[in-house]
Amino acid sequence: MITGKNLVGGVWESSATEVVFKIVNPNTKEQLTTSFQEATSDQLSQAVEKASAAFEVYSTSSFQMRAQFLRAIQEEIRNNSNEILAIYQVESALPEGRAKGELQRTLDQIERFINLLNEGSFSQAIIHTQGPDLRKVLFPIGPIVVFGASNFPLAFSTAGGDTISAFAAGCPVVVKAHPYHAGTSELVAQAIQTAIQKMKLPHGLFSHLGGESHAVGSALVAHPLVKGVGFTGSFKGGKALYDLAQKRSEPIPVFAEMGSVNPMFILENKLKTDGTLAADLASSIALGTGQFCTNPGLIVLCDPENKSSFLDQIRKEINEIPLPPMVHANIEANYHEHLTALDTINEDVQLHTSDNSHAAIGVVSASHFKMNPSLSEEVFGPFSMIVCCQNLDEMIDVAEGLNGQLTATILGTEADQKAIRLLLSKVQPKVGRILFEGVPTGVAVTQAMQHGGPYPASTDSRFTSVGSDAIYRWLRPLAFQDCPDALLPLPLQNQNPLGIQRNVNGLLTNKAL
Amino acid sequence: MITGKNLVGGVWESSATEVVFKIVNPNTKEQLTTSFQEATSDQLSQAVEKASAAFEVYSTSSFQMRAQFLRAIQEEIRNNSNEILAIYQVESALPEGRAKGELQRTLDQIERFINLLNEGSFSQAIIHTQGPDLRKVLFPIGPIVVFGASNFPLAFSTAGGDTISAFAAGCPVVVKAHPYHAGTSELVAQAIQTAIQKMKLPHGLFSHLGGESHAVGSALVAHPLVKGVGFTGSFKGGKALYDLAQKRSEPIPVFAEMGSVNPMFILENKLKTDGTLAADLASSIALGTGQFCTNPGLIVLCDPENKSSFLDQIRKEINEIPLPPMVHANIEANYHEHLTALDTINEDVQLHTSDNSHAAIGVVSASHFKMNPSLSEEVFGPFSMIVCCQNLDEMIDVAEGLNGQLTATILGTEADQKAIRLLLSKVQPKVGRILFEGVPTGVAVTQAMQHGGPYPASTDSRFTSVGSDAIYRWLRPLAFQDCPDALLPLPLQNQNPLGIQRNVNGLLTNKAL
Repeated sequence: MITGKNLVGGVWESSATEVVFKIVNPNTKEQLTTSFQEATSDQLSQAVEKASAAFEVYSTSSFQMRAQFLRAIQEEIRNNSNEILAIYQVESALPEGRAKGELQRTLDQIERFINLLNEGSFSQAIIHTQGPDLRKVLFPIGPIVVFGASNFPLAFSTAGGDTISAFAAGCPVVVKAHPYHAGTSELVAQAIQTAIQKMKLPHGLFSHLGGESHAVGSALVAHPLVKGVGFTGSFKGGKALYDLAQKRSEPIPVFAEMGSVNPMFILENKLKTDGTLAADLASSIALGTGQFCTNPGLIVLCDPENKSSFLDQIRKEINEIPLPPMVHANIEANYHEHLTALDTINEDVQLHTSDNSHAAIGVVSASHFKMNPSLSEEVFGPFSMIVCCQNLDEMIDVAEGLNGQLTATILGTEADQKAIRLLLSKVQPKVGRILFEGVPTGVAVTQAMQHGGPYPASTDSRFTSVGSDAIYRWLRPLAFQDCPDALLPLPLQNQNPLGIQRNVNGLLTNKAL
Repeated sequence: MITGKNLVGGVWESSATEVVFKIVNPNTKEQLTTSFQEATSDQLSQAVEKASAAFEVYSTSSFQMRAQFLRAIQEEIRNNSNEILAIYQVESALPEGRAKGELQRTLDQIERFINLLNEGSFSQAIIHTQGPDLRKVLFPIGPIVVFGASNFPLAFSTAGGDTISAFAAGCPVVVKAHPYHAGTSELVAQAIQTAIQKMKLPHGLFSHLGGESHAVGSALVAHPLVKGVGFTGSFKGGKALYDLAQKRSEPIPVFAEMGSVNPMFILENKLKTDGTLAADLASSIALGTGQFCTNPGLIVLCDPENKSSFLDQIRKEINEIPLPPMVHANIEANYHEHLTALDTINEDVQLHTSDNSHAAIGVVSASHFKMNPSLSEEVFGPFSMIVCCQNLDEMIDVAEGLNGQLTATILGTEADQKAIRLLLSKVQPKVGRILFEGVPTGVAVTQAMQHGGPYPASTDSRFTSVGSDAIYRWLRPLAFQDCPDALLPLPLQNQNPLGIQRNVNGLLTNKAL
């Protein structure tokens, strides 16, 4: 049952100062019944203090125990999946297939971190016994605040990659629930809370706080006992949290993934020869009603002769794709404002809007694009700006002018090799992931994934928020010099009780010392 | 020959606006003859622009070529070591033994990064061929600004760990020379420049800029093309650079190691039984005239009964140790100001100053220490504050009140095990390295070393500035999806041309695909 209350270190509390908000079903426009309470400053202080106390115990917990805890969370979510899937669809308007897919992705992510803990080498144990006995291992940084993302009610929210990677690292978590899917968030929080109870873990390990205003999130990031922040969302939101965190008397890391336009460069011979290109791009633009951070928001073409037929095709495709509404009326209003501004202010942009949905395409020449930097900003939603270049030089120019991006895609054939190499050298320093086939939407959750990129795509390009390497955001090295064996953390003890792979005097081994 | 000029991407330039400064020999107090020129804003812009252009070539250079470049730097420094050692001693007043030791440490550090490049697995190649073909490798972040450190004219300056790790990572470097040893810095810069010429590398790879004011350093950190900063020095200096970097329109990482008081906790039985403890601590406090970031600035004792004899002994030891002057009159003046403030403002601190040198010891009760937070701040120099606790609870209280530290040391015997465990749980979240024997001075350059710690010891506790892992400060993951083999960076190509260890579908191997 969804109560609308806040979970403060094990207790579902009613706020004394009942500031409440409600959710509207984006499909029916009907208001749902639950009144969600905004967390009070007392509640958030308590949540963080309890998290800090829990950290002292949980930071040195065994990997095995953490794996069992994640398994329990996974089971509780699975046991309550019908209820979760139902409210997910009501709150977000995302269709059943997507809901089920995202639930499975969330469960798979948890599985991945269970495997990581069972394998154990992520702790990067290094033992050096020549000279002073020096041993180094990764140690958790402390209580983490995780913000639910508007566009992923499950996989990037309450028990999403940020929360689960922090738990795996040994960090307590305080979730600031996203107000657009507060019910989904609460049900998942209940699952985590049940797992904590079953595992008899400290209740301070997890809190779940609601709020429609920015006050709760800001106060959490400013709290002195918070040691790190995970966020996926807009540049404006991410940058505000980042600035807040840097102004603290103790600055803390904020891992904000803030989206990007994910430029796609389509070379001459590719455009000539790929008959399904327009359809593929249109599907990618429209996927999830365009609400993905890897949505292709910028398509750069290099063929003055063949572009017309491509443009006709993609306009036709965009026109015909049926789309569910966006996850919230605010996001949809924001999207339409962007389009209107494009249409009225920029006479150099030819805007084509679908007759059947919100999907849209803009077309602009490279020279006009270069003169107007605002055209390279993200329009969150099912939209892409197509930039038409006269030649490769113009294309290189566009590439050089770009900001940091999550992804870039370079599509060409054998005949485009020279151009591909040139473009690659220009985009390489600016992106987290470069694709040479397909479309940037669809982010595989593997260890080889990099989801993050140079600023402003994310606030720290050295880390990823997707894939098992996401755990490194919450860990720091801690060295022990001449430490008695019994006092060492398990990964560093002589007998290698965890049986993990370690670097011992420069050689990788899973043997005891 | 030392010219006093600035090296701007291959050219030793005279400044048009001759702002100059001179160096005083701290031993003789005589002014040296060279006039060092402060870099102009034109020069620093040019240096950064050339570095940025060089990055496009050098970022994708082979590991082998980078190793050869480091080897050439090492040889040039070795070939000019007599001249370097001579000016080092004149400028810093540090004795010959220290000069030679630090030179050797600098050469050894270079050797370590040569080995790292030849071995190659630092690039962390991950290949995942199930699902989309996804391959990830570490890629350099861009031009780096390195600040020379006042207290290490060689090992933490021009060709020190910051510069060499950045070169190894694939990043060009602009060094802001420390004005206290500008001559030493210039000779080392000449060695690097010669190595670049011999290797026929782009001259923009390295620039060396002087300046006595903060203007040059601030302008470098603010320059849009600079992508990272390495600094070792005071909290004030490091924090100012950090804040500047966060206020840029594109924030960049600043790795500032800002020192700490490196608390030593000495438990009851240790104090009773270790006859050489006072002598060992006194030597550590006085080492390098106390000018080490790992200098033990805080000694916490837990024995009301035996402390008097220990205090007598350490005062006697401190009294007798002969000390060379500090590296600069400003540092020495600063040190004495701190001591005077302690003596006049805090009647609760018993200050004992050596009759023969600058060395000093303060003694204070735990209760007074706790009431006065300023007593836990670093006094840079040959000084330590001794905090006398009545019992273990007071000791724990002191530990809980501490800020982030580079190191903490816990000294006890078998009989102190319970107390050690308790203290360990309190200091673990606050430090980068924990010692259980000896003293914190002496930082072994091995992969297992962690030199860095939670804020305010450093600005990013997830990285180290000593040891081969220092390279990770200048690298970020870059993923390639469905990339043609010929376009992949060498570490990711099917044939594994570098023969490095890679993670292929979850298994570590150095085989080809």
